[in-house]
Amino acid sequence: MKKAVILLSGGLDSATSLFWAKAKGCKLFCLMFDYGQRHKKEISQAKVIAAKANCRYRVLKIDLAGKHSSLVNKHMKITAADIKKIIPSTYVPARNMIFLSFAASFAESEKADAVIIGANQIDYSNYPDCRAGFLKAFENAVNKGTKQGAQGKKIKILAPLLNKTKAQIVKMAKRLNVPIELTWSCYSGGKRACGRCPSCVIRAKGFKEAGIEDPCKSC
Amino acid sequence: MKKAVILLSGGLDSATSLFWAKAKGCKLFCLMFDYGQRHKKEISQAKVIAAKANCRYRVLKIDLAGKHSSLVNKHMKITAADIKKIIPSTYVPARNMIFLSFAASFAESEKADAVIIGANQIDYSNYPDCRAGFLKAFENAVNKGTKQGAQGKKIKILAPLLNKTKAQIVKMAKRLNVPIELTWSCYSGGKRACGRCPSCVIRAKGFKEAGIEDPCKSC
Repeated sequence: MKKAVILLSGGLDSATSLFWAKAKGCKLFCLMFDYGQRHKKEISQAKVIAAKANCRYRVLKIDLAGKHSSLVNKHMKITAADIKKIIPSTYVPARNMIFLSFAASFAESEKADAVIIGANQIDYSNYPDCRAGFLKAFENAVNKGTKQGAQGKKIKILAPLLNKTKAQIVKMAKRLNVPIELTWSCYSGGKRACGRCPSCVIRAKGFKEAGIEDPCKSC
Repeated sequence: MKKAVILLSGGLDSATSLFWAKAKGCKLFCLMFDYGQRHKKEISQAKVIAAKANCRYRVLKIDLAGKHSSLVNKHMKITAADIKKIIPSTYVPARNMIFLSFAASFAESEKADAVIIGANQIDYSNYPDCRAGFLKAFENAVNKGTKQGAQGKKIKILAPLLNKTKAQIVKMAKRLNVPIELTWSCYSGGKRACGRCPSCVIRAKGFKEAGIEDPCKSC
């Protein structure tokens, strides 16, 4: 992996993935998305984190045709109840597929050999597009559907945090000197983290289990 | 197939796919993309065709991070030479993957059971993202990565023209009363079709082999 495109949301997982790839000496380009999410703050945090890592970045504004997610529809309620059993209302249909498609397109344009995503399937919001089965299937589609892939120069989809617990990710972030205080996880769109949305609940659990205090001043 | 989202470019293939699905009694929603293509005319034609078919539609404006295609980069030359052997400069990295991802997202939001694309792998521009292998792999990714798919209510990716010659498509369009005169294929961005780009060359060959005159006044 010499050159990669990374999806940077501004959250803890993607920031940790960024510093993981940086530590490996990979040349990185960060892609961010403004898709009408409530928590626009993540975009400004992603920019600061990319700059901190000395990486180029770009924010792509996209228009999701459907609004059936509480993450983009303020009339819907955000809840973290039962996220181990159900897929919560914050699920955005095919979001990672859209993001990864743009990243694969850009990776091919830039002759990069990988796309990196901070997806995790252990302490997560139960979204199907964060699971190993999807990422493997998507990688296969990329390499069937791109010129680079069809010519045998594969584009890898890497998810370095896929099978880590949130506590392990917190420890890894510390070890890699990720500017954790700059990361933003809360879905609710406020200036301070709500502490109740799936993302806040999972983040708090991770820091607690790691025995590390969250340095984010608004969390 | 009761309800589907269809990618409508304004060209002959997607218009024929639209009328094919309509003839089957399918409820359709058309998605179009403004991705910085030279041939913006296809978007206005797609709108007229959707209205003619009494279908709702939406144009999504997207920003491709890479500009390494002559279809979006006017400094690059469009040529139709050797399209049987090479992938031409008009190839846009992962374009159909991006379009299909938005369509799958919208299909899931609308509880549709299919996404329709006018892709063809016989008389085509040799793009890897028009081939059966990619479409099958992408369908698999969709059904792994969406809530609907994960719950067993599959979203099908249908390409009704996949293995037809252009002459067969022309005849099918005639039979289905597609308003062929409204379709627009030329890539070059002029008011009249250039007759030289891959899309013009393939269209002309199709009408010639079908023994039908192209009713498009600007072609």
